[in-house]
Amino acid sequence: MASNDAQDPRLARISSAIRVIPNFPKPGIMFQDITTLLLDTKAFKDTIDLFVERYRDENISVVAGVEARGFIFGPPIALAIGAKFVPMRKPNKLPGEVISEEYSLEYGTDKIEMHVGAVQPGERALVIDDLIATGGTLCAAVNLLERVGVHVAECACVIELPELKVGA
Amino acid sequence: MASNDAQDPRLARISSAIRVIPNFPKPGIMFQDITTLLLDTKAFKDTIDLFVERYRDENISVVAGVEARGFIFGPPIALAIGAKFVPMRKPNKLPGEVISEEYSLEYGTDKIEMHVGAVQPGERALVIDDLIATGGTLCAAVNLLERVGVHVAECACVIELPELKVGA
Repeated sequence: MASNDAQDPRLARISSAIRVIPNFPKPGIMFQDITTLLLDTKAFKDTIDLFVERYRDENISVVAGVEARGFIFGPPIALAIGAKFVPMRKPNKLPGEVISEEYSLEYGTDKIEMHVGAVQPGERALVIDDLIATGGTLCAAVNLLERVGVHVAECACVIELPELKVGA
Repeated sequence: MASNDAQDPRLARISSAIRVIPNFPKPGIMFQDITTLLLDTKAFKDTIDLFVERYRDENISVVAGVEARGFIFGPPIALAIGAKFVPMRKPNKLPGEVISEEYSLEYGTDKIEMHVGAVQPGERALVIDDLIATGGTLCAAVNLLERVGVHVAECACVIELPELKVGA
């Protein structure tokens, strides 16, 4: 969770509002479910506020959100810091001309896409998702932005899974 | 677009920020692309403000958003009016126990799901999506909420397609 202060009292509330569902989507995975955070109006607001406090003075003009849970956290942050919101979607979902970037899954590959013209060279971006696990999707998002000349200031996630080795 | 005043000057800007892509996802469809609205920081903020002005005094405690573009517009509205955000997702995406509702497509059927326990009987809800076409998905969302005793105050969309007969 993004915070400039590890002791911020809001972190405990946010953390306790996230539910863990064992064995989803497959046996052995402890799924971190942020939907219960969204039901706690105070904890959800605190989550957005923490991101906004961290990024509002960083001269960021682009908030890119990764489908689908990055769509939930990205827009309120974008609106609060005066940045545009750029959705990064799974293949064949965006209607306009796209550029795409492949990334590896445990078995096989997947792809995310961004609209051509959504960002301009020289812009500064923040990439948002709910969770970083292996970092594969976030790396692909960063690559997409850097390929068109955008500087990625940071990737921000609500949850970082410490037990996983992050490949970013 | 939700507004109490048909002459609201913000509507023209919002409308002109929405791009039309011909023949997506298939020939003959004029796709209304809200991603360009998200790039216009003023028009995106105006869009959210118009919804908030309409619903902030309506005693709404639940904003339900339909995957995936309802996830973009729902959370900023929920945060602004102090309501929780409930994602309505495609099958097998939500990790907890769900209730689901089927709806008809042009060919075949699809389904949306909501977490059990996300809402309580007697709550008042607003359902958000980017666009209403046939109304099938929104009807399914309303049915899901009403089945668990929630009163749906209104369904709100950025775009209503007037050339389509709305089945709601």
